[in-house]
Amino acid sequence: MQRVARDDQLDKPCSLISTLEIVGDRWTPLILRDVALGITRFDALQRELGVSRKVLTQRLTALVGHEVLLRVPYSEHPPRYDYTLTEKGADLAMVVLAMQQFGDKWVFGEAGPPVQWRHLGCGQVARAVACCEHCGEPVAPGDAVPLRGPSFDDAASPEMGRALDRFEALSR
Amino acid sequence: MQRVARDDQLDKPCSLISTLEIVGDRWTPLILRDVALGITRFDALQRELGVSRKVLTQRLTALVGHEVLLRVPYSEHPPRYDYTLTEKGADLAMVVLAMQQFGDKWVFGEAGPPVQWRHLGCGQVARAVACCEHCGEPVAPGDAVPLRGPSFDDAASPEMGRALDRFEALSR
Repeated sequence: MQRVARDDQLDKPCSLISTLEIVGDRWTPLILRDVALGITRFDALQRELGVSRKVLTQRLTALVGHEVLLRVPYSEHPPRYDYTLTEKGADLAMVVLAMQQFGDKWVFGEAGPPVQWRHLGCGQVARAVACCEHCGEPVAPGDAVPLRGPSFDDAASPEMGRALDRFEALSR
Repeated sequence: MQRVARDDQLDKPCSLISTLEIVGDRWTPLILRDVALGITRFDALQRELGVSRKVLTQRLTALVGHEVLLRVPYSEHPPRYDYTLTEKGADLAMVVLAMQQFGDKWVFGEAGPPVQWRHLGCGQVARAVACCEHCGEPVAPGDAVPLRGPSFDDAASPEMGRALDRFEALSR
């Protein structure tokens, strides 16, 4: 479990830091995007990304170590592998998609994005949007209020505890 | 527009790299999370995160420069500010939420996350899930096929062009 240092003394597990530790370097989101797009072999990834073989090997090994990618042999002589997404990798690919859609909107804007998606369920070219898993309605900041979860630590996060108290008082 | 170097020669705009340039450092996702949670003042952010005043000032200034945060005065003597999310910041907060939910699931697991959300629309404690903006159904990798968008550059991304051709052939 990844922990975030606080004043070099206290540390606590952090969902965001743990995620960034996997996906926060320059190449990893691009590798995950390409694998999700069906570019699953070392040489093809290397040509597409223009990354050095050394760096690509390091990143793929790390992603296999994080159980984000699975290394599946497709040739014995010479030994060659496909890289495929695990369940954890599929979840992380959705984070990469969210990052990509943010960039599509705020970098490419009206020019339109380089890659779009056709949803097989309805056949339409459409973006993914965040929705409430209970009622299915789209959600944006302000549509939901935060509350203490099972792992909340008031001692480690006093300001956040106070912020959550304010939200709780408002929702009474 | 942020560009990604390819072999130190060719470069091209990239949605993912552009997003990481804003949100890929250690502190920025935590700052955005806290601002979205209602911790909007410098001193409160500094206490909550245990970050140095110098680093926090740098990150807040960068986020204002990226037009992700707006600096709103709440006191003239002494000069003091609230930091609030712009439209771009609200979009980026949803990326941070996706990162957080990935960490919640894969770091905290069955122990449950530190912070949960009650959706005001339906009143339920629920996560955000990615849904098709057209039909509203939840989507996961494999539920959609990629295709060339308006800004796709075959010369810069030959392997991705071939991958998109394969998807196009499959969907005929």
